[in-house]
Amino acid sequence: MTARVAEIIAVGTELLLGNVANTDAQDISQGLSELGINCFYHTTVGDNPERLKEALRVARSRADIIITTGGLGPTYDDLTKQTVCSFFGKELYLHEPTWARIRAYFEKLASPLTENNRQQAMLPVGGEIFENNWGTAPGCAFTADGDIRVLMLPGPPRECRAMFRHCAMPYLRALRGGALVSRIVRVFGLGESRMETLVRGRIEKAQNPTIAPYAQEGECFLRVTAYAESEEEAFALTEPAVAELTRLLHPHVYGVDVPSLEFVVLSLLTRHKKKLAVAESCTGGMIAARLTALPGASAVFMGGVTAYDSLLKINLLDVPRDILDEYGAVSAQTAEAMARGICARTGADLGIAVTGLAGPTGDGTDTPVGTVYLALCDSARGIVDCQNAVLGDERRRVRLAASGRALDMVRRWLDSP
Amino acid sequence: MTARVAEIIAVGTELLLGNVANTDAQDISQGLSELGINCFYHTTVGDNPERLKEALRVARSRADIIITTGGLGPTYDDLTKQTVCSFFGKELYLHEPTWARIRAYFEKLASPLTENNRQQAMLPVGGEIFENNWGTAPGCAFTADGDIRVLMLPGPPRECRAMFRHCAMPYLRALRGGALVSRIVRVFGLGESRMETLVRGRIEKAQNPTIAPYAQEGECFLRVTAYAESEEEAFALTEPAVAELTRLLHPHVYGVDVPSLEFVVLSLLTRHKKKLAVAESCTGGMIAARLTALPGASAVFMGGVTAYDSLLKINLLDVPRDILDEYGAVSAQTAEAMARGICARTGADLGIAVTGLAGPTGDGTDTPVGTVYLALCDSARGIVDCQNAVLGDERRRVRLAASGRALDMVRRWLDSP
Repeated sequence: MTARVAEIIAVGTELLLGNVANTDAQDISQGLSELGINCFYHTTVGDNPERLKEALRVARSRADIIITTGGLGPTYDDLTKQTVCSFFGKELYLHEPTWARIRAYFEKLASPLTENNRQQAMLPVGGEIFENNWGTAPGCAFTADGDIRVLMLPGPPRECRAMFRHCAMPYLRALRGGALVSRIVRVFGLGESRMETLVRGRIEKAQNPTIAPYAQEGECFLRVTAYAESEEEAFALTEPAVAELTRLLHPHVYGVDVPSLEFVVLSLLTRHKKKLAVAESCTGGMIAARLTALPGASAVFMGGVTAYDSLLKINLLDVPRDILDEYGAVSAQTAEAMARGICARTGADLGIAVTGLAGPTGDGTDTPVGTVYLALCDSARGIVDCQNAVLGDERRRVRLAASGRALDMVRRWLDSP
Repeated sequence: MTARVAEIIAVGTELLLGNVANTDAQDISQGLSELGINCFYHTTVGDNPERLKEALRVARSRADIIITTGGLGPTYDDLTKQTVCSFFGKELYLHEPTWARIRAYFEKLASPLTENNRQQAMLPVGGEIFENNWGTAPGCAFTADGDIRVLMLPGPPRECRAMFRHCAMPYLRALRGGALVSRIVRVFGLGESRMETLVRGRIEKAQNPTIAPYAQEGECFLRVTAYAESEEEAFALTEPAVAELTRLLHPHVYGVDVPSLEFVVLSLLTRHKKKLAVAESCTGGMIAARLTALPGASAVFMGGVTAYDSLLKINLLDVPRDILDEYGAVSAQTAEAMARGICARTGADLGIAVTGLAGPTGDGTDTPVGTVYLALCDSARGIVDCQNAVLGDERRRVRLAASGRALDMVRRWLDSP
């Protein structure tokens, strides 16, 4: 088995115009790293067949896995499939099941189907089809020039990421032999460099499994990846590392192999048979939106109030006007009154409240931009946790960090012995 | 004036491992677009001199502006300057003012200076220096092979962006004459292929300005770009196209050269001196979160209620229990009662309500997953708009589409004559 070398070619004029960042290349590169496949070049080209061919010519000379993203959509400038197949001498045919799926999709939406949509069901003869359960354009893979593998994935990041994980990675893994298991240790409340400092000794000595730190918006995680003959063996190899990392980073690890902090919060609420409601000011509905993004949230999440205007803090959350006058809207007292108010108004077992200054401008007092107060109320015990912090000076980050911290407060409370 | 063609080469193994996204290429591409400089390729290579040389060989054959990012730091793997200069046959010399600046910087930090830091003060003979006011590594530019311009910028996104804007853009602008203007026509409520079908004739005949369609999550837009001797002339060239596209796509165009639908809604509320509140069920806080993401939202957006649980529809929005019993939570009647309730409870001028089945599972009735009811209440007139639709079968998309449609209903009402 010789080591394979991959090259990613992103197709899309919007990338060259700077409308979007090439996150597909990042997502795919992470997956290739996990698979132990080297990637030496990323290339981006526009929706232009000649320049795509030029990129393919270059890639063909130095890689044996070529992965394209983008240009599989239904519009006239989506030319990746036609161009790549013509470059490698592959014919396209109408793949009936895909065409039926696309027609059904449009019928269900009661949306008119255009001739362009039929293009999306044209696929290379002899290739493998990656069904798209996240959008309309299927992806595909074929073998060319003897042993070059060519994979085509859709451009929209969500579709690309899902199809890469669910279809392309198994396809690539099969080329390699053996089994690979990848685990994720998720961390909230530590910056990436702080996390790395705490586990550096462990990361550096790691060979199999390997341990790699990643930063995400507002949180970070460690990926633990092991290779072995079987999946069971590979999993067993990851276990001691996962346990040690969890211990070293306690209490910041909110879960292993879980998708998100909100997922963990909903699971804990379900397990403890508790209902949650939220009272939001500066996060303006983000906490509720994060929780309700998950199916089944309604079983344990009741909803809440976005009391952006002080009037709503009074009318819908019963925050006493005195408290607002004396301490201001951004204060521990207001946060606590909001948390109590949302519990009382909704009958929830737990109420979490956030009030703060997201910026960019202050409120005319000394309170620095980025200041956030959070309070957690347990209907049986009253206020059980109250925190405050300055979470940076950029509106988007402050809101994201504040919503994460609110969720983490609920998580820690439910998780505490 | 021959049009110049740029190519961006990002240098950094962290990009190939997927640790970070290549946002430098995006930032630079946006600036190049503004300058009217075409960019046909982005390439990413690791911290490897041979592969960087290979990328330079390819770029030299097809571009006359080559911009590298990354690899200017003080560590042993920061080899961009040495590699690029050796490739183009340029000598490096110690640039005394830069060396003094770096020494002063380290003295101030009371941080030890290493021999590697001296590398950062080595600059190409005859080149132009881009001082770094945002970090330590200066950037630079030189002319090679007669008329190829080679620019080197630091990798950290903040430094790269600032140096590109403040140093590289003026350098590049001086090379070019003429002006470019790029406009954006934003569309809600049409799919990309439907939009394209409506304007295809117009797109295909477009030369200057060019017209390009783009899909974004939940909406789409057209970019209209013109070149001319002056900015005024270029702008004038875009005007008829923008007007015609707006007419062809009416009433789906929600704005020209505006950042987002929520921005337009807040602007209209401000212009009409109206306050808005929201009552959300299936969107679970997303409408509020989208509006409050923008600074200054508090002037016209009061907040709202996320009534995920029916109990909250009753307790916080005064939806009559009879209506819930008779018509169900997902019904026009409930949506209308929620819209009236949020107006009454908050004193807002406008109340928008959304209730629906985001899925993935149904509610045990015949109502298909994806069904959404929306109602808009004007406190002076009562319910002024009520809509329903089936918005697909994927939870995330249903919620995104429903929140967009709610915002668009407010937009259309405020925009109507």
